[in-house]
Amino acid sequence: MDLNSDLGESFGAWRMGDDAAMLDIVTSANVACGFHAGDPAGILDTLRAAAARGVAIGAHVAYPDLAGFGRRNMDPSSRELVADVIYQIGALQGLAAAAGTRVTYVKPHGALYNTIARDERQAADVIAALRALDPGLVLMGLAGSPLLDWARAGGLRVVAEAFADRAYTPDGALVSRREAGAVLHDPDLVAERMLDLVRTGEITAIDGSRVRLQADSICVHGDSPGAVAMARAVRQRLESSGVSLAPFAGMPVS
Amino acid sequence: MDLNSDLGESFGAWRMGDDAAMLDIVTSANVACGFHAGDPAGILDTLRAAAARGVAIGAHVAYPDLAGFGRRNMDPSSRELVADVIYQIGALQGLAAAAGTRVTYVKPHGALYNTIARDERQAADVIAALRALDPGLVLMGLAGSPLLDWARAGGLRVVAEAFADRAYTPDGALVSRREAGAVLHDPDLVAERMLDLVRTGEITAIDGSRVRLQADSICVHGDSPGAVAMARAVRQRLESSGVSLAPFAGMPVS
Amino acid sequence: MDLNSDLGESFGAWRMGDDAAMLDIVTSANVACGFHAGDPAGILDTLRAAAARGVAIGAHVAYPDLAGFGRRNMDPSSRELVADVIYQIGALQGLAAAAGTRVTYVKPHGALYNTIARDERQAADVIAALRALDPGLVLMGLAGSPLLDWARAGGLRVVAEAFADRAYTPDGALVSRREAGAVLHDPDLVAERMLDLVRTGEITAIDGSRVRLQADSICVHGDSPGAVAMARAVRQRLESSGVSLAPFAGMPVS
Amino acid sequence: MDLNSDLGESFGAWRMGDDAAMLDIVTSANVACGFHAGDPAGILDTLRAAAARGVAIGAHVAYPDLAGFGRRNMDPSSRELVADVIYQIGALQGLAAAAGTRVTYVKPHGALYNTIARDERQAADVIAALRALDPGLVLMGLAGSPLLDWARAGGLRVVAEAFADRAYTPDGALVSRREAGAVLHDPDLVAERMLDLVRTGEITAIDGSRVRLQADSICVHGDSPGAVAMARAVRQRLESSGVSLAPFAGMPVS
Repeated sequence: MDLNSDLGESFGAWRMGDDAAMLDIVTSANVACGFHAGDPAGILDTLRAAAARGVAIGAHVAYPDLAGFGRRNMDPSSRELVADVIYQIGALQGLAAAAGTRVTYVKPHGALYNTIARDERQAADVIAALRALDPGLVLMGLAGSPLLDWARAGGLRVVAEAFADRAYTPDGALVSRREAGAVLHDPDLVAERMLDLVRTGEITAIDGSRVRLQADSICVHGDSPGAVAMARAVRQRLESSGVSLAPFAGMPVS
Repeated sequence: MDLNSDLGESFGAWRMGDDAAMLDIVTSANVACGFHAGDPAGILDTLRAAAARGVAIGAHVAYPDLAGFGRRNMDPSSRELVADVIYQIGALQGLAAAAGTRVTYVKPHGALYNTIARDERQAADVIAALRALDPGLVLMGLAGSPLLDWARAGGLRVVAEAFADRAYTPDGALVSRREAGAVLHDPDLVAERMLDLVRTGEITAIDGSRVRLQADSICVHGDSPGAVAMARAVRQRLESSGVSLAPFAGMPVS
Repeated sequence: MDLNSDLGESFGAWRMGDDAAMLDIVTSANVACGFHAGDPAGILDTLRAAAARGVAIGAHVAYPDLAGFGRRNMDPSSRELVADVIYQIGALQGLAAAAGTRVTYVKPHGALYNTIARDERQAADVIAALRALDPGLVLMGLAGSPLLDWARAGGLRVVAEAFADRAYTPDGALVSRREAGAVLHDPDLVAERMLDLVRTGEITAIDGSRVRLQADSICVHGDSPGAVAMARAVRQRLESSGVSLAPFAGMPVS
Repeated sequence: MDLNSDLGESFGAWRMGDDAAMLDIVTSANVACGFHAGDPAGILDTLRAAAARGVAIGAHVAYPDLAGFGRRNMDPSSRELVADVIYQIGALQGLAAAAGTRVTYVKPHGALYNTIARDERQAADVIAALRALDPGLVLMGLAGSPLLDWARAGGLRVVAEAFADRAYTPDGALVSRREAGAVLHDPDLVAERMLDLVRTGEITAIDGSRVRLQADSICVHGDSPGAVAMARAVRQRLESSGVSLAPFAGMPVS
């Protein structure tokens, strides 16, 4: 099983998250590319730290929206979105090469992530961007979303991810953050749920029912001390139960 | 001989220069990377047009200063400058790959260009950036400047460029734009000077003396109809005199 | 009758439109505030030129999207949108004071303009911004749109505008740009339509029917030589027919 | 005596400093204006909190350099710098009006602060900006710097500030941060130094000599828990010794 987290999200004088701590926990790092977060020097630091630990690198591409941290919906044209995605992956590839590693996958961020999970036009643009740049790039997306089917149909290899700290509906979707109980806070409970998911391929939905969830990677957060502790709990619970953790994409440097 | 020009300098809704016309004239295109000019979609258009004509691609890296078009001096730290340069080259490499071409050289822009021609610390940062990303990248710089020696000493291949429309001092430096006669406007005169330079390796300085100028590429501008006409005059004068024009770096796609 | 146009939309080294020509034609200038276009120095030039001609100043506020020229939909929170609008108006007020004039009205730009014409939440945010900063600011919006009612109900004075070069549906809405005939190109026809509108309060819709259109201002464009010529034709047709042109808001400086 | 601090320096999702804690300590707040830090919504929050406590508001204007936090030298033209400063003050004035307060002074930030303390051309630009916008605006600058004389000669009221946590040379300049002992870390020592300064108009320089320092305001920092504690120590030491603290500019709302 793979553990991934969003990293490299500092910007200039502003810090966000504890990249060093998280890089000791995760096996794949979704690294900001400068559009929602991440200045080149800070990104490079994160890439070097990831390379030193053998953590796989994903391009965490986003809408161009620093002030909104990429969390606001936008409607770029296909011409714009395709080029914006290629630009960001390329920039990260350059920094990764300088850090002695390479970008193996792409995980869109924030509003772009949520939009392409369901919106076929913007999904097609992201898929086209990966194909135009390097069809060997893997696309990471929401487990159970149509995006994964569209990407497979487009010839891409995909990785489905589950969210460690989120509740699921009986049909395998995320419970909206606007609803009570959408976000889980108990590290032990979360760790147990993820072990259950890895072992059974199912998760207990918010109504108590069981739902199949095909996941190749588990997303954990690192933006607060509590989040880091939860991520560590998930890793320890999985490892102590004999689940081996490794980047889905194999070792990052060929 | 190689002819180069700054292209891809539109930004979003704003147009600058006539890239299509210039791509029929030059053999190497210095393409903006988004820091002083160039949005990803516009850059991609320029790269596709360059690829279709076999024009070589250089990364026109700059300080992060859209409002000042990269023409204002800045003093980034080495940590910042190295990463900013890698980021820009990487972004352009990604877009170039999508356009079916590749980046063969790097030509810094504006204030960064002028600064590194003489400032050893910032020059070292740019050289370090190229070495960290890909030591095969060629650095284009001002003919006669110490930058070229520093870059060679750093293990890079360099290309020295002369400016078609600029007057030179008796010791081979550019006459400052603040002085009368610094910029030449007569296309025929400029074309004749460049033919003279190619044939003799010398140019007539502003005081009438002759000065050696080792140049591998000639920079022409395309930001006005008059500039395009001058660039065309240079090309035609060289070709009609038997000078063959080709990218210094060979064909752009290996 | 008032004639308005979008001005101050250059940015740094990039030019857009012919502000000097348009300021001789219009009576009100919607001046960019830096979020979709306009750098402070360029804005100040436009404000000085407007002040010299007695042209009234409106703040052309927008989403923060330079790369998309403010034409892409975004969904800022109310907290963000209210503050973004106040920030832009304040910045323009400062520059206007330095230019010896003042901001009398606000006309949202591009995607924000279109969104608040119909979206009650974002419209309420813009209205709240004006009220919080200065309830004496006039809001200019699309003739016939619910925005104008919401703004009046919120205590603001409003100005309804018609578009000189656009076709209208039988119920007084703009024909979508995606449909044939949406944009008119014949200066004489456009000028005649505007004279008709001023005289009768009606306009001929795209199906030939007549539709009432209550408009206090006519928007003309200046982003191409053809656009400037059309704007001039509208002004000349109105003046030669005895329609006097003046800023709706009275003279800009009290 | 006045106590001032740099506030409103968060940006979007990124936090910086503890504005709420500092607003209980200082009497004047230098509020970021969006060029080096501060998004409009965050700035508005800070202004409201300052208004609720009667803290005076200064515009903390900067070079346009978010990635470098305004700490990198730049060389804008006079045309650019004058307009950039007016734009920022205006934007803050707008937000301040919405928060029920107003901007009474201007304190340049970072590299701009340091540059105009000695560079007559850029100092003249900042002075011209204040005069063009509102000659009643007070300029806060480095105690002992020629800027203050230039500003007075230009007709502005000035406020000289001392830095609580910095060592001074025997001639009243700041000891460079590159030298040992430049920054003081002991809250009690710092508080005692500031009380000494207020009582005697002198400060003990790094070589033990006494130097006159005419200061109207003391700058304290709030970007770490230790910095907040030091600021609190300075306030308590002054107050317990009978020094009354108040904004130099009187109450912020007339």
